[in-house]
Amino acid sequence: MRRLLHQPLDPKCRKIRLALAEKKLAFEMETERPWDRREELLVLNPAGMLPVLVEPDGTTVAGDRVIQEYLDEIYQDPDGGMVLLPGGPVDRAEARRIADWFDDKFADEVTRNLVDEKIVKRFLPRDLGGGPPDTEIVRIGMHNVSYHLDYVSFLVERRNWLAGDSLTIADLAAAAHFSAVDYLGNVPWTDFPQAKEWYARIKSRPSFRPLLADHVPGMPAAQHYANLDF
Amino acid sequence: MRRLLHQPLDPKCRKIRLALAEKKLAFEMETERPWDRREELLVLNPAGMLPVLVEPDGTTVAGDRVIQEYLDEIYQDPDGGMVLLPGGPVDRAEARRIADWFDDKFADEVTRNLVDEKIVKRFLPRDLGGGPPDTEIVRIGMHNVSYHLDYVSFLVERRNWLAGDSLTIADLAAAAHFSAVDYLGNVPWTDFPQAKEWYARIKSRPSFRPLLADHVPGMPAAQHYANLDF
Repeated sequence: MRRLLHQPLDPKCRKIRLALAEKKLAFEMETERPWDRREELLVLNPAGMLPVLVEPDGTTVAGDRVIQEYLDEIYQDPDGGMVLLPGGPVDRAEARRIADWFDDKFADEVTRNLVDEKIVKRFLPRDLGGGPPDTEIVRIGMHNVSYHLDYVSFLVERRNWLAGDSLTIADLAAAAHFSAVDYLGNVPWTDFPQAKEWYARIKSRPSFRPLLADHVPGMPAAQHYANLDF
Repeated sequence: MRRLLHQPLDPKCRKIRLALAEKKLAFEMETERPWDRREELLVLNPAGMLPVLVEPDGTTVAGDRVIQEYLDEIYQDPDGGMVLLPGGPVDRAEARRIADWFDDKFADEVTRNLVDEKIVKRFLPRDLGGGPPDTEIVRIGMHNVSYHLDYVSFLVERRNWLAGDSLTIADLAAAAHFSAVDYLGNVPWTDFPQAKEWYARIKSRPSFRPLLADHVPGMPAAQHYANLDF
């Protein structure tokens, strides 16, 4: 069976969970705490980072961007499944650009300030930076999220999905990041009706259901988190 | 003419300069200071990040990883030029994994602590984090570089190039990061003869020459920086 080593609220792991489900590839998940630096994780991925995909034949593919490229290359003709990067080189560049927007810029300006600060730090040992959230860092993250909702609104005013006519890895990456922040209840959806309509479309896909069932011990999701009519 | 908006000592820009030269694609460079948030940069790449490639027909491709994928897709049959990601999906995943090792992990553990701290901060306005280097951050960066030299040594003991038999984007990414740190004279090459031999091979390639001619105003390169026999 295909295995995915992951952290439930890590957006880069969530993106790959969505990608595997959209490609209709069955997989088992194993929760990994990368800060434990468990021997098996370091053997599979010397960088010690998640996600890591282990194929049924033992082939190991490490890193979210590496996995997304690999999945489209190896499962080129998915049986009714999604192509993550459809179209020609310019379309594909646009889908990658927007996915990277979320995996680099949103990650740095929002996810780190909110998800890492409010959740990851609860589980980290003190000598690795664990502790209570820094309210100033959280405040900056809350401020930054609106800028990204604005950008999503700008894109979906012009396009059906973020990178063009089709659903692509760009939508999966963006939804993965927003969903982790939404678990905390920190996405002001009502102020951004177009972005909300886009998120409602992706949230109602079957691939999203397992993400909506995620639960962080001692930290329940915001009330509307799993609600399709939010 | 093809244009590359770049910063001379930014390793992700350096990687693309190497990739273009290895693919024998002519280009002009324009130095950009992303912190100025110049209008043209934001139009070409709303994320405001470098590098940005503008093709002769006006097609714009933004972001180092997006550009590296695009170049191989659009110039599939380079006239004697390099394929950045050669081989099948598993080989390509390995080349991407090692390139990401440098663009994510080395960037975070070494480049940020040394290049950003000693060089970028000199040019940044104070309200954007400019100022003198933090000696503790520099100390950590100097400490971390050996770990990555160890990993390069481990790889080239087993392989001709970092990801296998051929030169790939993994070598260009790694050399780009090491070269920026080497400008500062902070790579202890003599302690890592195998890594040094690998770097000497890549440093002597014609594609590397323009990088060795780079010059930061008021901050000359370390004495051995441009020397092929270092």
